[in-house]
Amino acid sequence: MAGEVISKATLGRLPLYLHYLKSSAPDSPYISAAGIARALGLGEVQVRKDLSAASCGGKPKVGYEKKQLTSDLEGLLGCERNKNAVIVGAGKIGMALLSFEGFSEFGLEITAAFDSDSVKSGQEISGKSVLPIEQLDSFCRAQGVRIGIITVPANQAQKICDLMVSCGITAIWNFAPVTLSVPKGITVSQENLALSLAHLSSLAKI
Amino acid sequence: MAGEVISKATLGRLPLYLHYLKSSAPDSPYISAAGIARALGLGEVQVRKDLSAASCGGKPKVGYEKKQLTSDLEGLLGCERNKNAVIVGAGKIGMALLSFEGFSEFGLEITAAFDSDSVKSGQEISGKSVLPIEQLDSFCRAQGVRIGIITVPANQAQKICDLMVSCGITAIWNFAPVTLSVPKGITVSQENLALSLAHLSSLAKI
Repeated sequence: MAGEVISKATLGRLPLYLHYLKSSAPDSPYISAAGIARALGLGEVQVRKDLSAASCGGKPKVGYEKKQLTSDLEGLLGCERNKNAVIVGAGKIGMALLSFEGFSEFGLEITAAFDSDSVKSGQEISGKSVLPIEQLDSFCRAQGVRIGIITVPANQAQKICDLMVSCGITAIWNFAPVTLSVPKGITVSQENLALSLAHLSSLAKI
Repeated sequence: MAGEVISKATLGRLPLYLHYLKSSAPDSPYISAAGIARALGLGEVQVRKDLSAASCGGKPKVGYEKKQLTSDLEGLLGCERNKNAVIVGAGKIGMALLSFEGFSEFGLEITAAFDSDSVKSGQEISGKSVLPIEQLDSFCRAQGVRIGIITVPANQAQKICDLMVSCGITAIWNFAPVTLSVPKGITVSQENLALSLAHLSSLAKI
């Protein structure tokens, strides 16, 4: 039932449900846990449990009112408040992420990028600044930034990770192909684009 | 036992094991299924089953010789032959992927990008060409390309997907935020960068 403490596993799936609700056809004002489970290829029991933890609005045989469920998920995920993120590493991937517009759906915004290369800092991409790495701490403190994205080469990633943690960042999305070591309480999500493509190639038996 | 038909789920996890083997410390010539499971946060029974399907080299109490297991996984994944991929959509994300060097670990190479915008085609990025979309078919046929990466805007993605399929591509990595409809036998992997960041933010309770 909504109001209880929501498990980490459930929390991790809520953005998926929200994205589905926002992108699904507006054919009916209602949606069932079974329908969402089918569309996303997840187990129905799991989806039912997740949704009942996130919203009180489910009705037997009818399901959830889409509008209400969307609003409940947005509330839980804090989509209504802006969650600012910063990037360190103004290379091609960093710059592509800085100008990517899809994050706002989840109330996320990458507000600036940082780089130690003075040639790169000073640039402006899609109206956002690339700043010198020395300004990371004051920027994060001033804006209350708690999300950091690492797009530097592997051999610099741990140093940048330590710096981010010292700046008050608690969630790190790491694109560098290296396992980061972090203190307790810091969440790291490892992105590996090569592995994603290899996974696809393997599934397709290429 | 190796030699049997390997399930799709197992195949999908093999790149993960291979990446772990290649990036783990060379402290011992042997590695156990239990050790891999622990390091990757997977179930031990599952890893044991996957590895025994991929390699005959496991020995009780000792585990797998790392060198042999690496070679068995590379053989199964076809890492020794080059698996060429193409990108359609020469925007920022497409260009970042085109110049990304990490794919070679899995025998994957993005050999060219294509775009319908004649201003973009004709460029060269990291020694790779951006070609007019009209050349996609002949290029894919000549090089035997079976992997396509879609980095065009959402409203063009289905059209590009259909074109790729008609060019003989059987595995599609889709960065456009839209669900593609494909004929049977075509594998699609949906990438959603916004969802990845939202998932992290949600896990970290930000």
